[in-house]
Amino acid sequence: MKRATLVPVIGALAVVGIFSAVVSAQTVRPDRAIKYRQGIMGAQGWNMGVLGAMAKGDRPYNKDEAVRAATFVSQLLQMSWDGFAPGTDQGAPTKAKAEIWKEPAKFTQLADAAKAESLKLVAAAQTGDLAALRPAVGAMGKACNNCHDDFQSK
Amino acid sequence: MKRATLVPVIGALAVVGIFSAVVSAQTVRPDRAIKYRQGIMGAQGWNMGVLGAMAKGDRPYNKDEAVRAATFVSQLLQMSWDGFAPGTDQGAPTKAKAEIWKEPAKFTQLADAAKAESLKLVAAAQTGDLAALRPAVGAMGKACNNCHDDFQSK
Repeated sequence: MKRATLVPVIGALAVVGIFSAVVSAQTVRPDRAIKYRQGIMGAQGWNMGVLGAMAKGDRPYNKDEAVRAATFVSQLLQMSWDGFAPGTDQGAPTKAKAEIWKEPAKFTQLADAAKAESLKLVAAAQTGDLAALRPAVGAMGKACNNCHDDFQSK
Repeated sequence: MKRATLVPVIGALAVVGIFSAVVSAQTVRPDRAIKYRQGIMGAQGWNMGVLGAMAKGDRPYNKDEAVRAATFVSQLLQMSWDGFAPGTDQGAPTKAKAEIWKEPAKFTQLADAAKAESLKLVAAAQTGDLAALRPAVGAMGKACNNCHDDFQSK
């Protein structure tokens, strides 16, 4: 596509841009956002389950599988937040508490702490040492719980 | 933890290891595997929706958001396959066709093609040129559909 053919598109986007904040809020369907974040959170749980089973000795330790699961956890931890857009406190069954949108700074702080912990989890998995992995899995689980304790209904 | 304290654990894992194939098959709960893969697939759809809206002009083009969504698609495309373990053709509502487990080579081939396409999608997003992004989004959507056409019920 030649640059010239994009001019009408750029013109159209400039008009839309004025209303971008409104458009953003209106185009997020709460039910889809809720399912998105639940899908991501569930996938985090699946991969933490793999690591937890290794840490507890319920699953044979395997370095490659540990690195893979830890990497997936760290990647997924970057994703779910778009699903907590304003206005998504209802629209589908959800355990998300209203406090998420009342205390966004605290929510973000705990989310960032979990992201940071996941990088340590990947590093621990990469050592290839189960003795290093175990406490990192525990710390990651604690970082998940720190956020769930305040912001997720039982 | 000192090395010596791991000896009993290693001993236990050796015993479990003999039955690892059996244990693996038995410990994957089909309902959880189905929800895991559906969560990942849904998250792929969410991020493809972001890119599709940009490509169609329904959402303002933003390079950083495009790179982010494309990166998430490429990362998610590595994840769902564990959820298609043998024995997970039923256990929860699913559109996955039995052909997935009857024609694993074809399934894997189309999955690998989608993974490869997602790397091109990330590269296209990184150019910062909407004209480069548009066809890459189309090609990615086609790679998704190629697999869904054969292996997902309508």
